[in-house]
Amino acid sequence: MSDTPETAGKANPGNYFEDFRLGQEIIHATPRTVSEGDMALYTALYGSRFAIHSSDVFAGDLGFDGVPLDDLLVFHIVFGKTVPDISLNAIANLGYAMGRFEAPVQAGDTLSATSDVIGLKENSNGKTGVVYVRTHGVNQVGETVLDYVRWVMVRKRDPQAECVENLVPELAEVVAPESLFVPEGLSMEDYDLSLSGSPHLWDSYSVGEKIDHVDGMTIEEAEHMMATRLYQNTAKVHFNQHAAAAGRYPKRIVYGGHIISLARSLSFNGLANAFRVAALNAGSHVAPTFAGDTIYAWSEVLDKAALSAHEDIGVLRLRTVAVKDKACDGFPYKDEGGAYDPAVVLDLDYWVLMPRLYG
Amino acid sequence: MSDTPETAGKANPGNYFEDFRLGQEIIHATPRTVSEGDMALYTALYGSRFAIHSSDVFAGDLGFDGVPLDDLLVFHIVFGKTVPDISLNAIANLGYAMGRFEAPVQAGDTLSATSDVIGLKENSNGKTGVVYVRTHGVNQVGETVLDYVRWVMVRKRDPQAECVENLVPELAEVVAPESLFVPEGLSMEDYDLSLSGSPHLWDSYSVGEKIDHVDGMTIEEAEHMMATRLYQNTAKVHFNQHAAAAGRYPKRIVYGGHIISLARSLSFNGLANAFRVAALNAGSHVAPTFAGDTIYAWSEVLDKAALSAHEDIGVLRLRTVAVKDKACDGFPYKDEGGAYDPAVVLDLDYWVLMPRLYG
Amino acid sequence: MSDTPETAGKANPGNYFEDFRLGQEIIHATPRTVSEGDMALYTALYGSRFAIHSSDVFAGDLGFDGVPLDDLLVFHIVFGKTVPDISLNAIANLGYAMGRFEAPVQAGDTLSATSDVIGLKENSNGKTGVVYVRTHGVNQVGETVLDYVRWVMVRKRDPQAECVENLVPELAEVVAPESLFVPEGLSMEDYDLSLSGSPHLWDSYSVGEKIDHVDGMTIEEAEHMMATRLYQNTAKVHFNQHAAAAGRYPKRIVYGGHIISLARSLSFNGLANAFRVAALNAGSHVAPTFAGDTIYAWSEVLDKAALSAHEDIGVLRLRTVAVKDKACDGFPYKDEGGAYDPAVVLDLDYWVLMPRLYG
Repeated sequence: MSDTPETAGKANPGNYFEDFRLGQEIIHATPRTVSEGDMALYTALYGSRFAIHSSDVFAGDLGFDGVPLDDLLVFHIVFGKTVPDISLNAIANLGYAMGRFEAPVQAGDTLSATSDVIGLKENSNGKTGVVYVRTHGVNQVGETVLDYVRWVMVRKRDPQAECVENLVPELAEVVAPESLFVPEGLSMEDYDLSLSGSPHLWDSYSVGEKIDHVDGMTIEEAEHMMATRLYQNTAKVHFNQHAAAAGRYPKRIVYGGHIISLARSLSFNGLANAFRVAALNAGSHVAPTFAGDTIYAWSEVLDKAALSAHEDIGVLRLRTVAVKDKACDGFPYKDEGGAYDPAVVLDLDYWVLMPRLYG
Repeated sequence: MSDTPETAGKANPGNYFEDFRLGQEIIHATPRTVSEGDMALYTALYGSRFAIHSSDVFAGDLGFDGVPLDDLLVFHIVFGKTVPDISLNAIANLGYAMGRFEAPVQAGDTLSATSDVIGLKENSNGKTGVVYVRTHGVNQVGETVLDYVRWVMVRKRDPQAECVENLVPELAEVVAPESLFVPEGLSMEDYDLSLSGSPHLWDSYSVGEKIDHVDGMTIEEAEHMMATRLYQNTAKVHFNQHAAAAGRYPKRIVYGGHIISLARSLSFNGLANAFRVAALNAGSHVAPTFAGDTIYAWSEVLDKAALSAHEDIGVLRLRTVAVKDKACDGFPYKDEGGAYDPAVVLDLDYWVLMPRLYG
Repeated sequence: MSDTPETAGKANPGNYFEDFRLGQEIIHATPRTVSEGDMALYTALYGSRFAIHSSDVFAGDLGFDGVPLDDLLVFHIVFGKTVPDISLNAIANLGYAMGRFEAPVQAGDTLSATSDVIGLKENSNGKTGVVYVRTHGVNQVGETVLDYVRWVMVRKRDPQAECVENLVPELAEVVAPESLFVPEGLSMEDYDLSLSGSPHLWDSYSVGEKIDHVDGMTIEEAEHMMATRLYQNTAKVHFNQHAAAAGRYPKRIVYGGHIISLARSLSFNGLANAFRVAALNAGSHVAPTFAGDTIYAWSEVLDKAALSAHEDIGVLRLRTVAVKDKACDGFPYKDEGGAYDPAVVLDLDYWVLMPRLYG
């Protein structure tokens, strides 16, 4: 009752499936100037140790204009903006595709986001439908910082509403490595392996290689809520224990992006030189996560490619799997029938940049 | 025993009722330079989405010199300074009146505070008295940022102490709208309703209108303690579970200002264009709040006024009511006898600035 | 199994006792640019109120070039860098000595750290040994910010490994007061006792004087984990409840430095003018601390000295004792046999700078 537009008055009821139109462009509210405060909180929440996000000097030596924001912090902020318009009435966040990170983001930049509705598919039960959006995050001078597709299952307000537009967009399974964005002016000449924390460069990773990231991190309610609020993500399921107590899971659900960031941070231990996330090929939140769960992670190298324009940088396509309450020395994933190990909570497929042997 | 001056030695025992004198001016310790770090933490703690506190560009378009600090963050920092001198031995924070926000505060400003004792009233039990102070918060160039009256019930050290001065000050019930401070140079010409998050301007709100802010937010111990420490507020009841366990409530009590900020942040959903808190008319912490409670909020428009000097800005007088563990679609408040619904925890009466229809 | 180099692949297994060599210099990874975000988080985590770390204006009046980072925040960041190399396989952090704080650290500075192995002593059980390191923290222009010795008990990977080098270094019991670093250009002429929060200067403290810091602060899991991640400290025992549940203590152990910072912050109440930690003479984490524990603290003045080069600054040697779940009005410490009161968790011996009576 309390979330219908009638009762809520001037409160935002969010969009229901029948409110979306193919080709519609949605301008998301609350642009966000990012700061060193956001970066410090990100470190406190995930303990990230990638040197380019930690040291001005290290980042400057590579050609960055000061420490760039963690790529996933950019993702979460852009994603957060879309929630009040796209997924306030969502039941499930079904997938991501074709995510590309472009211009690096620095403290002081202001991020804003728009989304285009690129697909709609009503479900046969008449109660829900799937909405596909391409979201575009830009900085204050209009440069793209991030572009990605996601699709969500959204409730219909009125089961009788007719939904004439049905289109499932064609989505690439993987971002082509030659299309990956490499910030201008980067040079790996002064990349310091003592300071980066690992001697392993692009050349030493093999396709099929699996890496156990060893460490585990337990999630607290205060942490995932502070993170999700920092991203100004308003999805109701993360914050309200009073309402959750009556639901399917009697607990607040951790924002899926929180697990992505935890997994990326844990992956430092084995991938310390994967200095930039360049693209998001696919991602699945396999199972919900709750406070009290301990997250472990492992990665597999799915592919690797040299970049014709950059002899000192290569790209790795990684699958990082986050697992709860189970160590990853056995690389838990899927059984022979293709069903996920019940401990798996995240299956993420992405490209990273990594320095190559040089000199 | 441990909080008497004899045992504590050089530790601050705080002032007791008989230590205050009418007309006394108290200079509070620990001036505070505010930063983007404070702003990021404020976002992480409350998830505020008001665009002027989120985007440099949005704030600049309105005439602000960069993102101003959230008004309530300014309130909490100024308030926090007063605690060691005014309310370390307080039993209850009884009320607020005549609060006016003046110069906007930016990252880099240094805030300090003084208080004048403007009223004293011993209670008939001889054990406590009420202290009225007018607190004055200023920035590093001496501009007033905030001015407000609060009164607290304070213990007497010695029940036999004679308290000859008794004066209850006259306090206005409401700050006159024409006396509200509007920062110089503001213009609503470029106010963007897509980015602000709501199409509803001052003109569309009616006196008597009630708004359910819909969402609920559950409080964690780590959150309210981090907030209260950020404000350098030292009131003992918020931090010490070991001592609390033996008390009337066997739990740490959440700082009342934390609830004010949660309610203001929730109120975005229905009041997104209330871009500035201009005055605090009255406020009552109706019941204590504890970790685990879920806060909901609703507001009623008590009054509205145009401003003769600003054709593009109007003011709304709001009552925002925060409620615990109960949705606000029924607008819980008082029963016919005037007693609060037991779920109500905060009753706040304040003025906000809002853009008017223009062009 | 999961932390052996074989299974972990490219993950860092940490050094075992037999991996260390006398005279070895270790360059630690992940240099760190500190920011106002770190300072805000530090305030939120500990509620510190020392005016020089809170106000640009106050710090500037003393001759600092803006607010310096809290000395212990510098300590934690430098310490955190050493963990992946020195203590990932440690069983216990045994002690500190000869710690000297030098150049003040400002937001924007980049800290990095190296350690020299100065002592090795295999334990008779053949399973562990003690490693002594001198750690050196520097800023981006190579100035020393902190220098200290610590020793830890580290596991052997292979109990059969022969360890031929055995040397226990000679360590001073106390840093000589005349060797303490006083930042250049400091003057106490404008030190404001109203703003600093206490009238008690160096002159008024006596050797043997004990001060109960009165207040207690309860620790939450989210707080100590956010703090420890902020310091990029990767010690496993602080973060992983799933693994901890099977251990000797079935809980995550709070980073010992978190207790040091809590104790220092509580010590404001009685030592508000101890504006800088100048040296760390010795420190012992007497017992582990867990979330839910409430920390109290008291201090004793062990020694005091004037500084020949600074007539307006004196130094106090303090013992600050942190205690859990027990008020400190009885100054709990050791029994007649020299055994610690079971409530004591930290025994810290350090020098602070304090203004002298002047004018």
